[in-house]
Amino acid sequence: MDAPAAPCFDDIKAAAKRLEGHAVRTPLLESPLLNDRLGGRILVKAESLQRTGSFKYRGAFNRISLIPDADKDRGVVAYSSGNHAQGVAAAAARDLGLTATIVMPSDAPAIKRANTEAWGARVVAYDRWTEDREAIGARIAAETGAILVKPYDDPAIIAGQGTVGIELAEQAMAIAAIPDSVVVPGSGGGLAAGVALALASLLPSASIYVAEPEGYDDHARSLSAGYRIANEGHAPSFCDALLAPIPGELTFDINRRLLAGAFAVTDAEVAVAMRAALEAFKLVLEPGGAVPLAALLSGKLPVRGKTIAIVASGGNVDPSLFAEAIVDPAKPPDA
Amino acid sequence: MDAPAAPCFDDIKAAAKRLEGHAVRTPLLESPLLNDRLGGRILVKAESLQRTGSFKYRGAFNRISLIPDADKDRGVVAYSSGNHAQGVAAAAARDLGLTATIVMPSDAPAIKRANTEAWGARVVAYDRWTEDREAIGARIAAETGAILVKPYDDPAIIAGQGTVGIELAEQAMAIAAIPDSVVVPGSGGGLAAGVALALASLLPSASIYVAEPEGYDDHARSLSAGYRIANEGHAPSFCDALLAPIPGELTFDINRRLLAGAFAVTDAEVAVAMRAALEAFKLVLEPGGAVPLAALLSGKLPVRGKTIAIVASGGNVDPSLFAEAIVDPAKPPDA
Repeated sequence: MDAPAAPCFDDIKAAAKRLEGHAVRTPLLESPLLNDRLGGRILVKAESLQRTGSFKYRGAFNRISLIPDADKDRGVVAYSSGNHAQGVAAAAARDLGLTATIVMPSDAPAIKRANTEAWGARVVAYDRWTEDREAIGARIAAETGAILVKPYDDPAIIAGQGTVGIELAEQAMAIAAIPDSVVVPGSGGGLAAGVALALASLLPSASIYVAEPEGYDDHARSLSAGYRIANEGHAPSFCDALLAPIPGELTFDINRRLLAGAFAVTDAEVAVAMRAALEAFKLVLEPGGAVPLAALLSGKLPVRGKTIAIVASGGNVDPSLFAEAIVDPAKPPDA
Repeated sequence: MDAPAAPCFDDIKAAAKRLEGHAVRTPLLESPLLNDRLGGRILVKAESLQRTGSFKYRGAFNRISLIPDADKDRGVVAYSSGNHAQGVAAAAARDLGLTATIVMPSDAPAIKRANTEAWGARVVAYDRWTEDREAIGARIAAETGAILVKPYDDPAIIAGQGTVGIELAEQAMAIAAIPDSVVVPGSGGGLAAGVALALASLLPSASIYVAEPEGYDDHARSLSAGYRIANEGHAPSFCDALLAPIPGELTFDINRRLLAGAFAVTDAEVAVAMRAALEAFKLVLEPGGAVPLAALLSGKLPVRGKTIAIVASGGNVDPSLFAEAIVDPAKPPDA
């Protein structure tokens, strides 16, 4: 089978049209007091306020709405640590009328599993350390005929996530703010690829970066090397949304050309960012959603004199973990 | 001195025009999963995402921008438990170039005091139990010539808060949702009066309610009686934003005509609502901002079969108190 073609800007515009009336046009928020403190301007695209609590709904809805009518009875299957799970569950089972089976790690946050079921999907749990989720997904697809909705390595998923970039550019220009840089979380690389493609057309002067958890800096190392390098071992991190083993093939093919670099942040830096997001923006961010803000607050990407847009990608976090992170960020919750 | 005239709908429209490009047009959020659970439709106007973290910026900016040029050198003075403080500080000292002095209780949440100073105001602390903030404000006004910006009993303040109602009506109609009821927090009654005035024109079929903390149910009792009745004693409540002693004169004159009633909720019910706002909407709400949601979740205003819009009025809460409330809502933080 040939590798699928990378999406182009027109695919992202088409996805934006499809998502109208379904996805939330999330606000681009700003905190003048935080800007003062850092001596620059930070714009936060609050995808935590997206339907299903993360940007993943965009790609899932776009992908699933492209399934031909004749194939809809087959339903869909997906594997996910939790945000793609909810995105697929809502888009398929709730909004587009397809059955959905989701393969989730048995240690996924309780809120992610409960909501995936509440959106109408069947959940199959697997052990993240001993089982292969892709194999389980493929087996379910083979057994049931369900269509596999990949989490990132799919042109329609990338195009859907790219709609974040279109909105971000429009909203920034509406307040006469031209970002010097844009930082998005990196895991499989779908959000980065989509946003980078959109902004290559809309904000060509901006440098696009990914931020990722320390120990999961596969984008940093892959971008340096020019080819995909997997994460080594299983470093602990409480950024449960950002633990993909290696950048996607299709996503990295885009990101290799369009990204300016990557920053890795510690869990403690992420917890500090979660607390800052509460104080400055009144947002509940899950660890993975706070990673770009952590890259700024930790000084890895200097803010002084710059305008920097970040994507706060999700807010699906258990209240107890959230409380632990914000009360004592120097001692972040165990992974 | 004659009592000032109540504002009319045109005053609110004029305020909306003044606020354009200054106030945030906050999103109207919805959680299909929470809707499912309650069997109705809840729309949340997220004023926690407003500049300064609460709706209070709207009224303050509108009032202060009406000060004649010749009087601007006098500066402004205000008394406030914290949200009006930040609204006045930002509108005056940051955005409109007037000096601002704010009289705040010495036990106000740390985040509210720190931000009031960060927005550029001078803070004068007073003891909430032994001193009279209105008298201190009047004395500072007399001594310095500063113009007193009242927290609610002023037509320009009410008109500014009413812009919440215009946006709410527009945003609800854009998603074809016609609220049966609208619930806003009640303290001095400025938000309720402004929203009720706006919706009398834009959503005349909606019933408008206030929600208030138990022990501070002066609106409930005043609405029943038909005249203003003060709260008795100092019941403890952690809803620091909603502890005004009695409904305002001008605000109650409006609310008496336009409100359908009031609900009082316990601190434990508010803490449950704060946790629900995190889980369902990914919003950080301060106790006072969660009071309308508490009225719904506690069953005081039944949701089943209804569309109900609520104003989540603010998100200025210290992280430690927020954490305590969401981890064990049955045992809410001490007042």
